Amino acid sequence: MGEFGLIDLISRQFKVPEGVTGIGDDCAVIPQREGFDTLVSTDMLVEGSHFIRDRISPEDLGWKSAAVNLSDIAAMGGRPDGTFLSIAVPKETDGGWMKRFISGYRQLSERFSCPLLGGDTTASPDRICINVTVTGSVPTGRALRRGAAREGDLICVTGCLGDSALGLRMLLDGSTGHPDYRYFTSRHCRPLPRVEEGMALARTPGVHAMLDISDGLGSDLRHILEASGKGAVVECGAVPLSEQLRAYCSEHGLDPLEPALCGGEDYELLFTVDAGSESSLPVEHSVIGRITEPGEGLVWKGSDRDFLGFRHF
Amino acid sequence: MGEFGLIDLISRQFKVPEGVTGIGDDCAVIPQREGFDTLVSTDMLVEGSHFIRDRISPEDLGWKSAAVNLSDIAAMGGRPDGTFLSIAVPKETDGGWMKRFISGYRQLSERFSCPLLGGDTTASPDRICINVTVTGSVPTGRALRRGAAREGDLICVTGCLGDSALGLRMLLDGSTGHPDYRYFTSRHCRPLPRVEEGMALARTPGVHAMLDISDGLGSDLRHILEASGKGAVVECGAVPLSEQLRAYCSEHGLDPLEPALCGGEDYELLFTVDAGSESSLPVEHSVIGRITEPGEGLVWKGSDRDFLGFRHF
Repeated sequence: MGEFGLIDLISRQFKVPEGVTGIGDDCAVIPQREGFDTLVSTDMLVEGSHFIRDRISPEDLGWKSAAVNLSDIAAMGGRPDGTFLSIAVPKETDGGWMKRFISGYRQLSERFSCPLLGGDTTASPDRICINVTVTGSVPTGRALRRGAAREGDLICVTGCLGDSALGLRMLLDGSTGHPDYRYFTSRHCRPLPRVEEGMALARTPGVHAMLDISDGLGSDLRHILEASGKGAVVECGAVPLSEQLRAYCSEHGLDPLEPALCGGEDYELLFTVDAGSESSLPVEHSVIGRITEPGEGLVWKGSDRDFLGFRHF
Repeated sequence: MGEFGLIDLISRQFKVPEGVTGIGDDCAVIPQREGFDTLVSTDMLVEGSHFIRDRISPEDLGWKSAAVNLSDIAAMGGRPDGTFLSIAVPKETDGGWMKRFISGYRQLSERFSCPLLGGDTTASPDRICINVTVTGSVPTGRALRRGAAREGDLICVTGCLGDSALGLRMLLDGSTGHPDYRYFTSRHCRPLPRVEEGMALARTPGVHAMLDISDGLGSDLRHILEASGKGAVVECGAVPLSEQLRAYCSEHGLDPLEPALCGGEDYELLFTVDAGSESSLPVEHSVIGRITEPGEGLVWKGSDRDFLGFRHF
């Protein structure tokens, strides 16, 4: 359909808010507001490293490409304002693939009222390469940062951990006949960024540090501890697990802590809160531990293992 | 050196302005100011489509990756505030390659006081894939857009056109012995985005439409005409050409209009200005034509050809 036809196809599908300029010029134009900070994050997905084309539908990949970025805005407690999609596709890619990708991307965008405002469509020699940048906003000084954990804080997490990792496992081993195949794979392919929860937490006094779990609790909690200069004790028995995950791990003789702590891509929020404020938190959560003095390191109570998350290199 | 070692290496090299949070959290945080609009643009470069690894030095590629993005901010008349670099590299890539890439990227960033504020470093199965997003700012409502050309406007361009296309030609055919090899290839590999010129034009009354020449004058002028609903007459003899380009084309029996109008990647500014205001423009420029009624189309006077720029598909 040609580069400019593709841009037309895409731009027709996204409604842009009043006062904002989206696709069609050298840059998008977004008004600034006194009393707000702009948040920006970006993520790249390369075919063969981050996804396998015949194991994820174009719609799911479109959804996920945008979702993982919105999760970074959620992790700071911000509202996502718009996304920017760069996509390089081989010339021989079926035109239908791109339409389906954009369809999934649009579903996520509409679900979170976060329009596509720009991007770059280009050719790749072979592999599909996707980069999404998201911009958001948060009241000045209210962004929840990694380095703000305080000694004595409770460590909390939204949702359940590890389902996404089992979803990936099922996609790779093709166990489509399992009764929970759809449950696990949708947790992997259609993650729901915790945007409303993040915004609510940023408005709640006593919430200190926050990030989203993308590399796995084991790795991501370390990010909070390193940035805050603190230690932590985690009660492994308190890590929230779905019934489905418990059942699958029991069937397959797996330690459920393995996917829950090392799996990554859960896109749940991990945050710390003053012990006195925990009971008034506006979001469903599990308390899994507490922040300690720096010298105490990271202690996993209830397991004899040392959990590390995923590293790209 | 590992993913987090690489992030450390990068983040140490970029100074972040007071009040801004750069690399190290889920998002960068940039204060908003009343009276300004945020500009955002993004560009992807894939090895094998946009560059060939052994024909461009890592330093030049780092410079160019950032420069082409800053050019989009310049094209709206804005000030670049920060960039976001996503880069996927094969695991076997020499660590020195990345250091040299970042060195060139930093040189461009320092030259334009535009720090790296975030990004994503990840693995690619084989090809290097780079995406840069840039954010900038412009006083509210002062961004110079493609669709603002008016009938009777003069069409102007900064600098000379076509040198970059000849630089690419020389890189590909390896004509390193030519006396102007360095001149042409540096125009291709180290483009200078017209940031100061763009900002000055945005402050000048009578300047209407603007963009940067990335696909070639033939294609990019069409973008202004389509967005503005206008026609144009271009005097081919007025298109600015360097002495070096005239000499090279004469030596090789080439039509100098071919690289100048179809080549692309010049990153000069193309803009339209009220005929009465042209003499007071604050930037060096050439007048190459004028905007006409829509029905008159695009007429190239002084050539019998119809020039189209580069298309990715």
